[in-house]
Amino acid sequence: MAANVSPWKNKKTRRRDREVKREAVLRAAADLFNEKGFHSTSIDDVARRLHVTKPTIYHYVENKDDILYQCIRLGVDATRKVVGEVASQKAPAMERLKSAMREHARLAARDFGMCVIRVGESSLPAERRNRIRRLRREVDHLYRALVQEGIDEGSLAPCDPKLASFTIAAAIAWISRWYHADGPLSVDDIADQCVDILMNGLIKRPRSNRRLN
Amino acid sequence: MAANVSPWKNKKTRRRDREVKREAVLRAAADLFNEKGFHSTSIDDVARRLHVTKPTIYHYVENKDDILYQCIRLGVDATRKVVGEVASQKAPAMERLKSAMREHARLAARDFGMCVIRVGESSLPAERRNRIRRLRREVDHLYRALVQEGIDEGSLAPCDPKLASFTIAAAIAWISRWYHADGPLSVDDIADQCVDILMNGLIKRPRSNRRLN
Repeated sequence: MAANVSPWKNKKTRRRDREVKREAVLRAAADLFNEKGFHSTSIDDVARRLHVTKPTIYHYVENKDDILYQCIRLGVDATRKVVGEVASQKAPAMERLKSAMREHARLAARDFGMCVIRVGESSLPAERRNRIRRLRREVDHLYRALVQEGIDEGSLAPCDPKLASFTIAAAIAWISRWYHADGPLSVDDIADQCVDILMNGLIKRPRSNRRLN
Repeated sequence: MAANVSPWKNKKTRRRDREVKREAVLRAAADLFNEKGFHSTSIDDVARRLHVTKPTIYHYVENKDDILYQCIRLGVDATRKVVGEVASQKAPAMERLKSAMREHARLAARDFGMCVIRVGESSLPAERRNRIRRLRREVDHLYRALVQEGIDEGSLAPCDPKLASFTIAAAIAWISRWYHADGPLSVDDIADQCVDILMNGLIKRPRSNRRLN
């Protein structure tokens, strides 16, 4: 027999509903920012894309700056989380570095990750801008530590981990800049090839020494 | 006996003088754009830096947009010239690619080359913006051709030359973004390490297989 069910949603369900809708607002905004730029996107554009009214949008976010901050925050947080998780796995540093780059590259081709690079935090108010920069620095330090571990374990060639981390960040940021979902290559293809160039270099190695991904 | 010398400069000398001064204006402006951004730099700032008046500056350039166009144009032209020259030398493609990247990286850390990346052509009027983009595409195609030649000659690992060219451009652009003349590393150190990562990859190779620069 069916239980007596209240026609009102309970608190937990309501909170989850709200969260789902808030994320939909942010995702639509991130897509628009990435396509036509932050300054050329209005709250009206976001509302139109979601077939809702402008006041509905303001029910979930404060203003356009707030949307941008939330989008970038989600992008950097996801990156930091995935790189951090991979970095702390039990595996040779070289393998962890490869996985971290691949996962990071995948995020860089998606809404919030793309927003981090295409729009960036520079137009945010100082306090929020600095909070984002701190998080980005954390990602950088995770990479530096991984590179250093790889050098120490003897799998990576001696290099300046800071420069290596910048080069990795640069290559992945470029994916954010030019990736188009309707282009000929999938995100995974691009991520794999980018990681291959960074790990193995452009020079051809004898078969036995070339470690394939 | 001294020849009878006119106290007026001849046409050729005057033209050269003008060129030297025009370039000094562009160089001062490029440095300011790179330091504090295009929008935060005024013609007054440029004049002040050169200890001249604003009308003097307008004797050499039309306006701020014109300055930006000339700066970016000089940066891209120099890059295209150096990459093109190296590409047409008689040497294995792999060696030419390495030299091209190294020279390109050096330019990327200097005034006009830095301006190409830090400021960019996006705020220029459409016609000039497109002219710059065409030139940048030419540089991209020089790299793609070099990578393809390297694959064909068997010195470079098979890869998508377009993706390789993007990764090269990304790594070099990053040098423009974060290089500071008073940092601990010289331009040459950075250029060499960046090229080494791109050519040899991060993975350690057995001594005999690792080709040093």
